[in-house]
Amino acid sequence: MEDKDRPSDVFPDALEFVALRNLYESAVKQIALKFEILDSEFSILYDRNPIHHIESRVKSAESIIAKLVKRGQPLTVEAAMSSVNDIAGVRVVCHYIDDVYRVAEMFRRQKDVEILKVQDYIKTPNYNGYRSLHLDIRVPVYLSDRTEYVCAEIQIRTIAMDFWASLEHDIRYKADKSNLPAGINEEMFACADKIAEIDAQMQDMYKRIKESEKAK
Amino acid sequence: MEDKDRPSDVFPDALEFVALRNLYESAVKQIALKFEILDSEFSILYDRNPIHHIESRVKSAESIIAKLVKRGQPLTVEAAMSSVNDIAGVRVVCHYIDDVYRVAEMFRRQKDVEILKVQDYIKTPNYNGYRSLHLDIRVPVYLSDRTEYVCAEIQIRTIAMDFWASLEHDIRYKADKSNLPAGINEEMFACADKIAEIDAQMQDMYKRIKESEKAK
Amino acid sequence: MEDKDRPSDVFPDALEFVALRNLYESAVKQIALKFEILDSEFSILYDRNPIHHIESRVKSAESIIAKLVKRGQPLTVEAAMSSVNDIAGVRVVCHYIDDVYRVAEMFRRQKDVEILKVQDYIKTPNYNGYRSLHLDIRVPVYLSDRTEYVCAEIQIRTIAMDFWASLEHDIRYKADKSNLPAGINEEMFACADKIAEIDAQMQDMYKRIKESEKAK
Amino acid sequence: MEDKDRPSDVFPDALEFVALRNLYESAVKQIALKFEILDSEFSILYDRNPIHHIESRVKSAESIIAKLVKRGQPLTVEAAMSSVNDIAGVRVVCHYIDDVYRVAEMFRRQKDVEILKVQDYIKTPNYNGYRSLHLDIRVPVYLSDRTEYVCAEIQIRTIAMDFWASLEHDIRYKADKSNLPAGINEEMFACADKIAEIDAQMQDMYKRIKESEKAK
Repeated sequence: MEDKDRPSDVFPDALEFVALRNLYESAVKQIALKFEILDSEFSILYDRNPIHHIESRVKSAESIIAKLVKRGQPLTVEAAMSSVNDIAGVRVVCHYIDDVYRVAEMFRRQKDVEILKVQDYIKTPNYNGYRSLHLDIRVPVYLSDRTEYVCAEIQIRTIAMDFWASLEHDIRYKADKSNLPAGINEEMFACADKIAEIDAQMQDMYKRIKESEKAK
Repeated sequence: MEDKDRPSDVFPDALEFVALRNLYESAVKQIALKFEILDSEFSILYDRNPIHHIESRVKSAESIIAKLVKRGQPLTVEAAMSSVNDIAGVRVVCHYIDDVYRVAEMFRRQKDVEILKVQDYIKTPNYNGYRSLHLDIRVPVYLSDRTEYVCAEIQIRTIAMDFWASLEHDIRYKADKSNLPAGINEEMFACADKIAEIDAQMQDMYKRIKESEKAK
Repeated sequence: MEDKDRPSDVFPDALEFVALRNLYESAVKQIALKFEILDSEFSILYDRNPIHHIESRVKSAESIIAKLVKRGQPLTVEAAMSSVNDIAGVRVVCHYIDDVYRVAEMFRRQKDVEILKVQDYIKTPNYNGYRSLHLDIRVPVYLSDRTEYVCAEIQIRTIAMDFWASLEHDIRYKADKSNLPAGINEEMFACADKIAEIDAQMQDMYKRIKESEKAK
Repeated sequence: MEDKDRPSDVFPDALEFVALRNLYESAVKQIALKFEILDSEFSILYDRNPIHHIESRVKSAESIIAKLVKRGQPLTVEAAMSSVNDIAGVRVVCHYIDDVYRVAEMFRRQKDVEILKVQDYIKTPNYNGYRSLHLDIRVPVYLSDRTEYVCAEIQIRTIAMDFWASLEHDIRYKADKSNLPAGINEEMFACADKIAEIDAQMQDMYKRIKESEKAK
């Protein structure tokens, strides 16, 4: 059902940005579906789902344009595709740390996925304690008259890492950082370490429980 | 996943309109769920689903404001609630004509639904041939600290009527009606009649097939 | 949330059939997503969606096994993949007849889709009046350790054809055909013709309305 | 799209159990929608969503029957409704501990929700460290010809509690508990405590960050 009173679009001349977003949204849906398929393949082999949930986002046309303006780039699709590298993002939240690496490995092996860069912020956490496995990738998107190769950033992490990251996000994108509570960064770092310990312990208990089943 | 570059909202002072839309969206979700529940109740009793699909829409804050401006009304939530009567709409598309009336009857009997007005554009089609059963209703929406009673328009129609209406919609909301193809209104009217005949015939064949099963 | 009282599976030894279904379900999701992506690409180019809705289904393991038993085939995955050719089906329901062909054309042009067979039951309706464009296709499904090429049947049709087909389906899969109402097949055939006329007329009116807009 | 080869149902005479499950599924959908509506109401007032995700389940007809058999109860709908008290369950997973109580409070205040029992396993954790706020409730389900009052169990907890509970679930429903790893229960209990500490610390940091924003 359409809304017949909707005023005309904010960027009437931005049709090519609409098409650009559509391309990235198509990519993001395909990538999310790839992980869903891997998750159900895994669940048949090992009788449980490694993935807790999947989120995805594509920057709005306004945001892409805002970023180009901020960088003094021309407002073109080409500039957006080459210089705004976080247009498309997919976040895969897994139960255990091992799941993060297994799911990443399953994904990387796929013939139509090109891996551009891997950053393992789990083995080497960020300065503030941030943990996550990042893959910069490129996938084909099949359109009606051509195949486009689209870049996207994949973040794979555990539920516990994701919980921590949601608070870190609140801090990082706070408008004014001058009045952050004293010592909050150190506290966040320490908290990330404690969460990592719990992740390791839960993983370890899970394994011992599974092994005890087989030992029987 | 949030988009951290998203510019601030178009109507920064329109928080109360955001809350208004949220209220109507809540109403629309509840109404749609009511029909889904009736559909599955029906399917257990009669072994088929009367409803083909359900659509719903809530006017955007911009559209509500545009309508208030057009009517010279004050830009307040109260004015919107009292004078913009198509803020929330739910369309229920059924397979057969009998389903339209059965589903409407099931819905009307519900204790928490208040029927404000019934317009039967199937028995008495509109001047241009438009057919649909319209119910203006009011339902309670349970919020955290109060219960709001919200109006909405329900359109119940067959698939065939819905197909016709999609073309009629293109004509009705055409910016410039001066250059409509000659005779298009008459042709649409005649087409609506033919579609109604087919609806009646399909309904009749369906009944005879079902009766032949029981006759056995 | 799991249901801890669920009894063990009906086919405890049918794990390979579960994996088989999973493969076809993955294929079906990928195919449906391909059409969704084409639909949104189209909507950006032409400002409207050609596809009304998409349905899909995968035969249950029980159904696949039942079919193999009926045909005296061995109950193996290989036999299922080679002899049960309707395991996976995707139905794409479009607004107008032209949309059927445009969407099919957009889909066929995609590099990773292999077209095995095309049957145009719109140009040459079936004996009983059935209309639909059928494509037998094969698509790659990327798994963790290999790429499988999976067959599926695509049915593309208009809303009006789909409405007719739902009644025809009731007749075709009726347990006992001996007591069908007299003359029902002829009546269905005549009805299919009338529906095809309306489809053509609606398509024609739609085109004239769009042309009148441009003519301005 | 139906599957025409699907064999007839496992419990051909269990139509009333199908209707029973449908009733509970309707209840569960309504309850989940209530929480979605509260979540979006909250997000407008406080600019963030307290709820991370909602899960729900209804016991299968097979499970309900299995439970009745195990208890030596008659296989009737009445026996099921009165003696199987976990037929319907909704789990609401929140970000922070305060959210658990706020969401519960918003829900409890709703006029059409009857609270039967509250068990606060956060204030008083279970023997093994399990934490969650449980509400046994009753809600009206509006059917076509009557209103049924249906019981359901609501579990409200944080993401961190939910993570812990998923492992505890693996242990609790393990077929054979004789060979659980030595000391696993004590370790789980200790882990639940550590997770509770982190929940409290994250909650505390979140509050201080928000207050520092206002202090400005």
